[in-house]
Amino acid sequence: MNIALIGQGFMGRAHSNAYNQVAHFFELKHRPRLKLLCGRRADELRTMAARWGWEETTTDWREAVTRPDIDVVDIAAPNSLHAPIAIAAAEAGKIVFAEKPMANTLDEARRMAAAARGVRTMVWFNYRRVPAIAFAKRLIEEGRLGRIFHYRATYLQQWGNDPSRKSGWKLEKAVAGSGVTGDLLSHLFDTALELNGPVSRLSAMQTTFEAGREIDDAAAVMVEFANGSQGTFEATRYAVGAVNQNRFEIHGSRGMVRFNLEDLNRLEFHDATIDAAEQGPRSILVTAPAHPYGTNFWKPGHIIGYEHTFIAALGDFLRAVERDEEFHPDFGDGVAVQSVLDAVERSAASGAWTTPEKAGV
Amino acid sequence: MNIALIGQGFMGRAHSNAYNQVAHFFELKHRPRLKLLCGRRADELRTMAARWGWEETTTDWREAVTRPDIDVVDIAAPNSLHAPIAIAAAEAGKIVFAEKPMANTLDEARRMAAAARGVRTMVWFNYRRVPAIAFAKRLIEEGRLGRIFHYRATYLQQWGNDPSRKSGWKLEKAVAGSGVTGDLLSHLFDTALELNGPVSRLSAMQTTFEAGREIDDAAAVMVEFANGSQGTFEATRYAVGAVNQNRFEIHGSRGMVRFNLEDLNRLEFHDATIDAAEQGPRSILVTAPAHPYGTNFWKPGHIIGYEHTFIAALGDFLRAVERDEEFHPDFGDGVAVQSVLDAVERSAASGAWTTPEKAGV
Amino acid sequence: MNIALIGQGFMGRAHSNAYNQVAHFFELKHRPRLKLLCGRRADELRTMAARWGWEETTTDWREAVTRPDIDVVDIAAPNSLHAPIAIAAAEAGKIVFAEKPMANTLDEARRMAAAARGVRTMVWFNYRRVPAIAFAKRLIEEGRLGRIFHYRATYLQQWGNDPSRKSGWKLEKAVAGSGVTGDLLSHLFDTALELNGPVSRLSAMQTTFEAGREIDDAAAVMVEFANGSQGTFEATRYAVGAVNQNRFEIHGSRGMVRFNLEDLNRLEFHDATIDAAEQGPRSILVTAPAHPYGTNFWKPGHIIGYEHTFIAALGDFLRAVERDEEFHPDFGDGVAVQSVLDAVERSAASGAWTTPEKAGV
Amino acid sequence: MNIALIGQGFMGRAHSNAYNQVAHFFELKHRPRLKLLCGRRADELRTMAARWGWEETTTDWREAVTRPDIDVVDIAAPNSLHAPIAIAAAEAGKIVFAEKPMANTLDEARRMAAAARGVRTMVWFNYRRVPAIAFAKRLIEEGRLGRIFHYRATYLQQWGNDPSRKSGWKLEKAVAGSGVTGDLLSHLFDTALELNGPVSRLSAMQTTFEAGREIDDAAAVMVEFANGSQGTFEATRYAVGAVNQNRFEIHGSRGMVRFNLEDLNRLEFHDATIDAAEQGPRSILVTAPAHPYGTNFWKPGHIIGYEHTFIAALGDFLRAVERDEEFHPDFGDGVAVQSVLDAVERSAASGAWTTPEKAGV
Repeated sequence: MNIALIGQGFMGRAHSNAYNQVAHFFELKHRPRLKLLCGRRADELRTMAARWGWEETTTDWREAVTRPDIDVVDIAAPNSLHAPIAIAAAEAGKIVFAEKPMANTLDEARRMAAAARGVRTMVWFNYRRVPAIAFAKRLIEEGRLGRIFHYRATYLQQWGNDPSRKSGWKLEKAVAGSGVTGDLLSHLFDTALELNGPVSRLSAMQTTFEAGREIDDAAAVMVEFANGSQGTFEATRYAVGAVNQNRFEIHGSRGMVRFNLEDLNRLEFHDATIDAAEQGPRSILVTAPAHPYGTNFWKPGHIIGYEHTFIAALGDFLRAVERDEEFHPDFGDGVAVQSVLDAVERSAASGAWTTPEKAGV
Repeated sequence: MNIALIGQGFMGRAHSNAYNQVAHFFELKHRPRLKLLCGRRADELRTMAARWGWEETTTDWREAVTRPDIDVVDIAAPNSLHAPIAIAAAEAGKIVFAEKPMANTLDEARRMAAAARGVRTMVWFNYRRVPAIAFAKRLIEEGRLGRIFHYRATYLQQWGNDPSRKSGWKLEKAVAGSGVTGDLLSHLFDTALELNGPVSRLSAMQTTFEAGREIDDAAAVMVEFANGSQGTFEATRYAVGAVNQNRFEIHGSRGMVRFNLEDLNRLEFHDATIDAAEQGPRSILVTAPAHPYGTNFWKPGHIIGYEHTFIAALGDFLRAVERDEEFHPDFGDGVAVQSVLDAVERSAASGAWTTPEKAGV
Repeated sequence: MNIALIGQGFMGRAHSNAYNQVAHFFELKHRPRLKLLCGRRADELRTMAARWGWEETTTDWREAVTRPDIDVVDIAAPNSLHAPIAIAAAEAGKIVFAEKPMANTLDEARRMAAAARGVRTMVWFNYRRVPAIAFAKRLIEEGRLGRIFHYRATYLQQWGNDPSRKSGWKLEKAVAGSGVTGDLLSHLFDTALELNGPVSRLSAMQTTFEAGREIDDAAAVMVEFANGSQGTFEATRYAVGAVNQNRFEIHGSRGMVRFNLEDLNRLEFHDATIDAAEQGPRSILVTAPAHPYGTNFWKPGHIIGYEHTFIAALGDFLRAVERDEEFHPDFGDGVAVQSVLDAVERSAASGAWTTPEKAGV
Repeated sequence: MNIALIGQGFMGRAHSNAYNQVAHFFELKHRPRLKLLCGRRADELRTMAARWGWEETTTDWREAVTRPDIDVVDIAAPNSLHAPIAIAAAEAGKIVFAEKPMANTLDEARRMAAAARGVRTMVWFNYRRVPAIAFAKRLIEEGRLGRIFHYRATYLQQWGNDPSRKSGWKLEKAVAGSGVTGDLLSHLFDTALELNGPVSRLSAMQTTFEAGREIDDAAAVMVEFANGSQGTFEATRYAVGAVNQNRFEIHGSRGMVRFNLEDLNRLEFHDATIDAAEQGPRSILVTAPAHPYGTNFWKPGHIIGYEHTFIAALGDFLRAVERDEEFHPDFGDGVAVQSVLDAVERSAASGAWTTPEKAGV
């Protein structure tokens, strides 16, 4: 399977690592081949290709789409390029991977999904593959939380307050589409839809702290989920003291789970069905053989890091291909998230409670 | 100073304890005298009076208001009695203390405040006297957090999920007025107004999980504060796994503070002005002589409990009287909180962003 | 029951508080009467008596022993006075309470116990009454930890490093007897003997950081318990960053418990008998009705403080008297602890493994 | 640089990963070439070689030593093979890497070091390269902890209690040499010597819980360091509830650091020189550019795992070779650790305080 990766930034590195590492930790019939690296800064591109083992480079992403020897087009370019590249790649019959947010608008996302009807796709919502989150999903599916009352999620970063980081494409509306809504809420809602099901309606606010900036520096959302639970979401780049806190807690009639990405090898689980005197949140180190991905990486207690979530997503995708099975999150899942983000933006603009549009293409 | 206490429940006990203990920890010229205990369950009343040292008992609260030897009428009765008792007591010239929520409606609260114009008052927002919260206030006033970006508060309890606790006056709309809005959001907003200033506008939701119940089992609020910060609030009795988590975190341009009532002797403080490599939230045990109330109770590291917040509130009040100084939170502060709660209820009903009414009487 | 308290320091205050509070939280037939307060600083004594409700004061402790109207002599005076006062009081037929360490030497402790054969006694090892520790004991007695492998305890304070605290009786060998050995290890070993049974032999070290000082600033002990478990103990006043960390963790074949006095309302409990994937230390807030002392104080999640451990010890003692039941820790338990401390000192001096002497008088 | 790796177990995997990954995260002139993989189970060897990219395999480690195209012999075989392989490899002029413990006896270690006088060596004490530990070292070197009073370290695992893990070479004295002393105390003492300097004398105990077993299941050590600080160490495979807790805390006159391998991206640092009211242990996420290895891996808050410590050790070694600089820990450092372990065993056997032999060859 020949890969073309478009993107030479942080995500380009994370994906390159995954392609290099996936066969070390997942039993695969075929290894991905790092064929073509695309990016606009030609000189850096060669250095990066040499470092990570890409065979060729190009500064024109269309090459990735048109070359017949490319099987997968992996888009880690700035957000506004997702739709054009993905549509071209899908129309060329390629497997398409897209970084999150899938797109800058719901319309874009739908057009991407429509174009990709006949091809396999993946959205890099890598946090689904955090072992602790996969374990939370298992507990929920087994009914261990019972009826869900509350879903509470925050994604707290602080770099917005850093005077040295006042520019970059993530702050430009034309490129990024939005601020934390696309960048961080997208992660929170992918996890929420996965763990807690569809959103019925929501009310949102977006806040911009920096004068003259067009994108949202922070956002908050109140949610009614279809299962009757109450949801609250908050994302920000101005949470001074928090480096990368993707946190959630879910309270149900039979138990609770709690997670924080800064300590991603742990899940807190409270079992409300045991003797009352013995109840309390358990701090579970999710590194044992019995845990998701527990036999892929190291021994119990030998923790994994951020990068392993990409490796696991890729490993699961490649095995799904080998076994001819479904894989999620695909572009359909990406549209579902985008539909919620679209409702967030409309609600923040109107001040009214808003229902996400049906996600279907 | 002769006290009449109306209430024989949990709060009646907490106040009784404070009257007994205040002179042990605060240097006072005069001790409060536990004169009269009022309640409706006559037999229990005598037991309670004997246990806590109340000299007399009555089942008619009007006695407290009319007896000339009573100086303070302390209302720890169910919420719907706050207004009638407080108004009668104030009109009789008594000092009036009221448990939270001050009232069931903004109108009631205003009438209470109007009646009490000429007398000293206190609302038992005891958490202002948690040493860690008082210390947070000091840090904020000194500018240690800089410009505030975020105020995030939750009050999480789980007893709503307990099948043995499906009745009681806290669940009856006619008596309690509301569910978590009056019971828990009132605490959160008193602290928020104290630490972060006025609310400009808000959008709220209230959720009832129990079929047929008239009050709110959970509530969430998004807030724009007058200082430009983004606020999020959530209160619930269905947060399984959380016993009594009154938590907040405040992020500013220069630092962060974080608090959890279940570990009330601690404040986390992040100083974003020091060398970047050394930054991280500090876990400060707020029990040293240099801390608020640090010389009132025990030695450093010998922690205090829930009850001490009542003792400290009472101690501060009595010293304010002795020194002829202002005391807060008084009924004016209570009206300010009630005005926010009123906006919460209106917003939850209308679905629209809502501005709290001016708090003034 | 008329009390004479000897001591006007920190412990004098803590005991005074307990006498005032015990009948508020424990159902008792008779309340203790704060009859006589003894101390050497006459002027302060009167202030303290007025504040805490002591009826009379004296600067001669012998008065407490000889007055026929005194039922209990409570010794909170510096360590070197414990033996003479306790022996005189016991010989006068008084109930005797002694602060910890019970004595400065094993011989003193034995003579105290011998003199007190016919009277009731208590050593103020108040931490046995921390609800979380009492709960740990219950779990151990129920076999929830299985065979014990490890007992690890530390008592970490930092005030030794404080330049303003370089004098005081706790630093004088003639008065204090020892440094952390008597002051802090005594607490650790009382809890250890209670939770894990007798010590077979031990090897100890004592360290003095301050030049010219005669007492131990820190101590460490390795222990073989009679049950075959391996024990390690460390106490210090030079653990900068730790305020009052009396911590222990106990690992057994079926589970683990962990405790830290700075967060005394919690016990961590790990159940190793449940499904492996769900195992992890639980953080249990020990404030529920089902917990030890859970119905004495406040509602679940409304935490108690340091002082409540004294109230609970006193409450248990008084109920034991009313019911004509045994009470522990008494002077016999105090001798057992002193025997271990004696072995610690002998081992630290000789460098050899040492067996504690039989505790019996 | 052609590598021959001897070992096909957990450590074989961890080293293979490091060879694959090092050039992705470290700027190197030359990449290591995975030339030869040696092990005794031939069939598994081929699978492992295919997975990790080893060019050739052999079941005879002597091949690695004798082949002229091999530059580095990396020993991840069971402990008893370290000395013969290392000596043969060094005598053949190879660069030699050895897993920890370096050897089963001090004598072996010395003979290894003597043989390796003319070649470069590394002992895989990978935890020196945990960013948080490297940061602790920096703080100590800058004097931020002041005079050191206490060094407290524990290495707690629980697999000894697992009935399914009652055999394996780590439990055989002839192969492993010892139990936790070589396996876990070696890690603790390498870090301790690095952070706190030489050990003056020690007293140790070793405990075996499993009847008939010849090796130590647990060990404890009391230490006097040359700098006057008091040290305590404990290692065990029977700490039920602890998965892989390599923890230490160091208390000095000016501050404290605390670490736990289960949360290896964090260091707690307490600065005792700032305003007393603001002091408290800070939880520092050691992932920022200003931190050790902060620019090698991912962005701040995107945590690394266990495997990265091997990558960093290897990266540092290879850069040291390229720059012709010293590298530590080398065999000399390994002998120093082995000398302490030797004293531990002698003290545990004799019951006496023991001085480690001079580490020099």
